[in-house]
This record gives sequence, C-alpha cells and structure tokens, in this order.
Amino acid sequence: MSEINKVTIVGGTHGNEFTGVYLVKKWQQQPAEVTRSSFTTSTLWANPKAHEQNKRYCDQDLNRQFTRAQLDDVNLVGYEQSRAKIIDAELGPKGDAKCDFVIDLHTTTSNMGPCLLLTQQGKIYRQLAAYVKMQMPEAVIFRDEDHLSAAQHHLLATVGTYGVIVEVGPVPQSVIRQDVLEQSAELTRHILDFIEHCNLGTLPTLPQQVEGYRYLESIKLPVDANGQRLGMVHNHVQDNDFKPLHPGDPLFMTFAGETITYQGADTVYPAFINEAAYYDNNLAMSLLEKVVIDVE
Amino acid sequence: MSEINKVTIVGGTHGNEFTGVYLVKKWQQQPAEVTRSSFTTSTLWANPKAHEQNKRYCDQDLNRQFTRAQLDDVNLVGYEQSRAKIIDAELGPKGDAKCDFVIDLHTTTSNMGPCLLLTQQGKIYRQLAAYVKMQMPEAVIFRDEDHLSAAQHHLLATVGTYGVIVEVGPVPQSVIRQDVLEQSAELTRHILDFIEHCNLGTLPTLPQQVEGYRYLESIKLPVDANGQRLGMVHNHVQDNDFKPLHPGDPLFMTFAGETITYQGADTVYPAFINEAAYYDNNLAMSLLEKVVIDVE
Repeated sequence: MSEINKVTIVGGTHGNEFTGVYLVKKWQQQPAEVTRSSFTTSTLWANPKAHEQNKRYCDQDLNRQFTRAQLDDVNLVGYEQSRAKIIDAELGPKGDAKCDFVIDLHTTTSNMGPCLLLTQQGKIYRQLAAYVKMQMPEAVIFRDEDHLSAAQHHLLATVGTYGVIVEVGPVPQSVIRQDVLEQSAELTRHILDFIEHCNLGTLPTLPQQVEGYRYLESIKLPVDANGQRLGMVHNHVQDNDFKPLHPGDPLFMTFAGETITYQGADTVYPAFINEAAYYDNNLAMSLLEKVVIDVE
Repeated sequence: MSEINKVTIVGGTHGNEFTGVYLVKKWQQQPAEVTRSSFTTSTLWANPKAHEQNKRYCDQDLNRQFTRAQLDDVNLVGYEQSRAKIIDAELGPKGDAKCDFVIDLHTTTSNMGPCLLLTQQGKIYRQLAAYVKMQMPEAVIFRDEDHLSAAQHHLLATVGTYGVIVEVGPVPQSVIRQDVLEQSAELTRHILDFIEHCNLGTLPTLPQQVEGYRYLESIKLPVDANGQRLGMVHNHVQDNDFKPLHPGDPLFMTFAGETITYQGADTVYPAFINEAAYYDNNLAMSLLEKVVIDVE
C-alpha cells in the first residue's frame, strides 16, 4: 500500500442524517481531533441543500450516484446528480483520485450500533477491520457489495482511492443523539489512527482473523397488486440487526394479523431492519451472511 | 355527561407519523375493531398530502391550527390552515360540534411509551384516565395545556365536544413499528370501550385517584447569537421521559464537550425528549409536574 496523503471526512450526504452534519461542522471549527502528522484531513458537507430542506435528498439519493458511468453521463442533471459530479471533481476523479481515503458519515434508524462498512476488498480494508475491532470491539464489520468493482459502485465513499462508511444507529431521522454522535466520532478516530499507523509503519500486531458480515440481498415488505403495503417488520426481527434469522422464523406481520415467515434456505443475519429511508422502495431489510475475514 | 353518539378516529394529522395513517386505513377496511353498540365510529385521514410528501406538514403544522380565532380567520390560506377549516366543517364547528369525541392518533420519536394526552379538564377525562390506567397500567396520563379553554386550544383533537390524543413512542418518523402500532390500537380500544361503558351505564368501579403528569413549559436547545445549535440533549436525559430531572442534573452536552445542567428550582419530569419534529423551533423537551388526579 502506498502512503495515504489526503483524507476527506464527508458528512451530510443524506440531509436528514444530522450526526455527520454536526460532526463535520465541529471538526471544521476544532480540527485538532481529526488532524494526524502523516496526512492532511479535510472535511466536506456533501449536501447542505437537502439538510436545509430536512430531507434525505432533493431529487435523487446522492449516495447512489457515483458509478463511473453516472459521473460521466452529462444527461444526468438532477440536483444530486450534479452534486456528485462536483464532488467527483473535488475529491476524484474516481479511478484517479486526488483524495486517497474517504470516510463518509451516515446514520440509520436501525439498531445496528457502530458499523464500519467496507465497499471494496483488499488488504488495507482487512487490516482496518482488524484494527477497528481491536480498539472498539462493539463495532461491526459490514462488507457492503464488495463484489462490485469500484467503477461500478454507486456509493460516494468510492470516489476516492479508498473509502469506507461509518454507519451508526439507532437514531431517528432529523435527530442528534449524544451516544450515536460519540460512537461515530470514536469510530472515525480509530480509522484516522489506523491510517497514521500505516503511514508511519507503527501498526500494532493485528489478529489473524476478524468476524464480519457480508451483504447478500435486500428483501421487500409484503405489498398487494397495487403496491400498497400489506404488513410490517415482525416484532421478532425488529431491533435484532446482526442476530440470526432462521428459515421459518417470523419475518413480517400483516396489518390483518397474519405472520409471514422467512422462507430462505439458510440462516442469515439481517441489518438495516425497518430503516426509514428504505420505505421509498418498500425495502424491509438487508440480509447478510456471517464471514470470517483472514487479515493477511 | 350527555350521551356520546359520534366518535371520530383521526390519523395522519402529521404526514410522517405512519402509525395513525395505517391504523385508519386498517379500520376503514375492518371497522369491527372500532365499532361499538351505543355510538357510531368514523375515521378521518387528516393530511394525506403531507403523507404523500413524507413530511410532517406541507405549509404549517396542522395540529396547531384549531383555535376558534384561527378557524374563523379567512386570511389564513396555507394548506394546513385550509385543511383545518375543512375538518372544522366536517367534525365541528368547534364549540357546537357534530362530533362528540375525537381520538387523534400521533407518534413521537421520544421514549414516552403509550400516552393518553388530555387537552381539557372535566369529569369525563378524569374517569377516562382512571379507566385506561386500570386496563393498561403502562399507559401514561398527560394533561397537556389543559388550563386553556377549548376555544383557545390549537390542537385538532379539540374540534369535537370532547377530544384526546393517543401519543405513542419511540418510533422514528416515517417508520411503522409493530409494538407502537399495537400499543396505539390497544389504547384506542380502551377509549372506545370507556365511551361504550359511559353510554350504557356499565362503567366498572374506578379508583379514586390516578397518577398523571401536567405540562408546565417547553425548554430550548442551547443556541448561539445566530441561532445555531451549540449542543444536544445529554445522555443523562435521553430516553428518560417521565423520569425525575432534579435541579443541577445534566441537561445538555455542548458540541465543545461541556455539560449544561438543569437550573430550575424544582424537580420536574421531562417528556417529548429530543423529539425530531421539535427541532424546527429548537425545542429540546417539555417539562411536566407529577400530579394526582382525583377522579370524582
């Protein structure tokens, strides 16, 4: 791995996730907390307009606009599609980026605790995962669609050479919780410390393996022929992010009072359970498998 | 108390409080659950347009538009100001209402559990409080600005002769939780049963006294001279709705890391702690006093 010279911490990619907005504002005023000796740290408030409107986004989800093809498509002229091009010019261009490492701050309404989302495979990510788990054992390592190439990945964090998402919950949209804000700040500090250790060659001895979860698929709420929702996430699943869901377990409760069970063949581990932002597409949760990551 | 002939259950007064919207839709399809022998029950989806936009309101908070003066002011022409006039024509006119009893369904992001909000004083409310506590001991009785006359009260629930709010949390905005939906439905059922018992003269023997909380005032987040927020609700208070807050207890944590303590003279009981919808006005929470309600 070559040296990391430029790190950017991004907040407010989603306008109603207040935690990242306030952390970025704080670190703009008090940069010492995110300053390290071996690289420069900058901050970026990705979507102030959506925050002003107290919405996730104005026109499109900004965190779905960063495939190389989307960035190159001049016909994509929506507000967030335009913001993505500007951020690509600022931090990228994706594929040959000025920014070496992007940390994008997000929150969720789901009970996921502090999560480190890895968008790519590679030794630096495996070592980061191991380092973070050493420093913050309660953190969860989440491998998010890391089968895609960076060019195909639509997340903002993939605009730099390396990139991760700090994803912490539960917190309602448009709310700041002290606990979630502090967990987000702590996880960010560990990532910055890891990069510093890498640059200086001072990484401590890491464990050989670390536990994580790998994204498999998203599943939808039950809907009728007109797309009207017929039910909700079952109490059995609600708040149980990263807990096992076995074939035959209760999954949804219809408004008529019937339980719908999980029909998959294997035990899976849900996350983003009942996330508010996913209602737009009737997504109920993501399903993950538990994995062991070999660090070396 | 004269007989209650017409009851209206209102949902979706706030567009991003999904629970009431889905309960009203359900009861429109399955009216048996809210039907009783001695009165008619109708349902009203108060603000479908705000729900379509996934916002609390389009122009103004609909649940602040129901003073008699506002309803009579033809110069108030915003969307919710107009909806209020239409609802007044449908259920009111306030002060001489067609609807005898309004049950308005709300949710909160705060950890308030199932709450019955009483907007007026009077024997029927005291008896209702006692009956609800008998049937659902975990329910909280919340006397909300009941020093105002009905004409001065701006809440939708005051448009009928009698009216209460069913307020349940915690649930993020734009989310349906099975537990919160079921608590809302249960509390509504007890209110309907109470009205049925009143009409039929079959009320069970009620306790002589019932515990509740009475609204005192709302307090604001710390802000600077430009109105920018300087801090957040302290971990010590977060999620501790209806728990005592003593003079000198931690109240806010500034983003700079300083604790701000509660400076009031008396122990109070906060509610609506860190409610998402109150950020617009920088309201941090409501303060209440614990009261004993003499039922007779």
